[in-house]
Amino acid sequence: MITGADVRLACRSGSFAGPTPGLAPGFVQANLVILPQDWAWDFLLFCQRNPRPCPLLDVTEPGDPVPHALAPAADLRTDLPAYRVWENGELVDEPTDIVRRWRSDLVSFLVGCSFTFENALAAAGVPIRHIEESRNVPMYRTNVPCREAGRFRGPMVVSMRPLTPGHALAATRICSRFPRAHGAPVHLGDPAAIGIADAARPDFGDAVTIRPGEVPVFWACGVTPQAALMEAKPPFAITHKPGHMFVTDLTDTDLDGE
Amino acid sequence: MITGADVRLACRSGSFAGPTPGLAPGFVQANLVILPQDWAWDFLLFCQRNPRPCPLLDVTEPGDPVPHALAPAADLRTDLPAYRVWENGELVDEPTDIVRRWRSDLVSFLVGCSFTFENALAAAGVPIRHIEESRNVPMYRTNVPCREAGRFRGPMVVSMRPLTPGHALAATRICSRFPRAHGAPVHLGDPAAIGIADAARPDFGDAVTIRPGEVPVFWACGVTPQAALMEAKPPFAITHKPGHMFVTDLTDTDLDGE
Repeated sequence: MITGADVRLACRSGSFAGPTPGLAPGFVQANLVILPQDWAWDFLLFCQRNPRPCPLLDVTEPGDPVPHALAPAADLRTDLPAYRVWENGELVDEPTDIVRRWRSDLVSFLVGCSFTFENALAAAGVPIRHIEESRNVPMYRTNVPCREAGRFRGPMVVSMRPLTPGHALAATRICSRFPRAHGAPVHLGDPAAIGIADAARPDFGDAVTIRPGEVPVFWACGVTPQAALMEAKPPFAITHKPGHMFVTDLTDTDLDGE
Repeated sequence: MITGADVRLACRSGSFAGPTPGLAPGFVQANLVILPQDWAWDFLLFCQRNPRPCPLLDVTEPGDPVPHALAPAADLRTDLPAYRVWENGELVDEPTDIVRRWRSDLVSFLVGCSFTFENALAAAGVPIRHIEESRNVPMYRTNVPCREAGRFRGPMVVSMRPLTPGHALAATRICSRFPRAHGAPVHLGDPAAIGIADAARPDFGDAVTIRPGEVPVFWACGVTPQAALMEAKPPFAITHKPGHMFVTDLTDTDLDGE
């Protein structure tokens, strides 16, 4: 069985630099945001005030590259497959490690990810369309504002999965158990009610088929904090490359009910 | 019906300065910790790392006395019945307002409280011994360490309610729905397993009767952050006076599943 540690060591050695969905099944994957210490308070507060889109799994001490709660032997500078480096809101680099970019004032934020609840949905027999269609999940900017925190503001971004009413109810019940992986859906039905003009034209990711008898079901999405980050334009920031997540030592079960 | 706003206005006008348990039934009550901005990061991180004992309901901007998420018309300087003022870890004053103590660098933290889940337990017919016996809930220091954050560290403090096995199971199920009010119990049974020498001698609050056939059930307790605060000895801090909580506009239902 491939573990989170296996994936991280493959990243660290340079032998793996690809996307992580489906890797190390059952191990919790996390979004990564790294900021200088003088931006960390605002971002921590933004996450605290918007727990559905920004469920914090761990926050490191300044300069410490180890996410002790998630993987005490990991190094956030080398253990992801690929990173994005941002300066003043502009993407300036997409390296496979950030050793030379590291600074003693950097604080790392690990944010929960929908893969955890998708595994639980799949195990319960709830079909996940974008996986069936081998696409990225469709994501949309909404007209639902996040609560502001200092320099961070912006709309909630949501992901969408089309489900039958019965599966929508089961998904709500199942996802409620995973508040640190975005929790229960935030909306169901008419996309316009949350400011989405056309479900066939997502702002991020790919469109998926909505079949007759299905309703679109919307979850708060981990792209929300990254969108707020890009709008705030801090002088320096590092994130994971989309789809290239940090794979932790936690299992999905560890997040159940937590 | 008495609302949270009614209690706050009575505090503000000086007509009420007593304990809040049982007041404005169904409205969420909160623990209050106020710290200077240069201590706020450490404390916010301590709460993020220890969500069971320190479930954050709201954090204010520096100098802003309004907890916007909990009660937009409230003023934290006047709307609690009584406060405690601390200097270097020493209790120096117990005023009924903190208007003259207020500073532009103060950040306020509102932390969830067990009253929310006790209401849900009572509604489900689960008896709560300390209420039956008209006592304060018994609370104990454990040997379970909190995760450290900067200058804040210390053991988890727990509250205890004796229950039959059937009620313990019901309580676990019910309290799981309220992660922002300490959530499910953290231990059940032998007090020594979490470092409690004698359940009849609590560290805080009052002892209660454990009847034959009952097991002690332990919940993470909101005294934990206050204990960490008193150990860290910040130069200046303000808390609520124990039992004299901030009564919010939220209802217990608002926290259900959140």
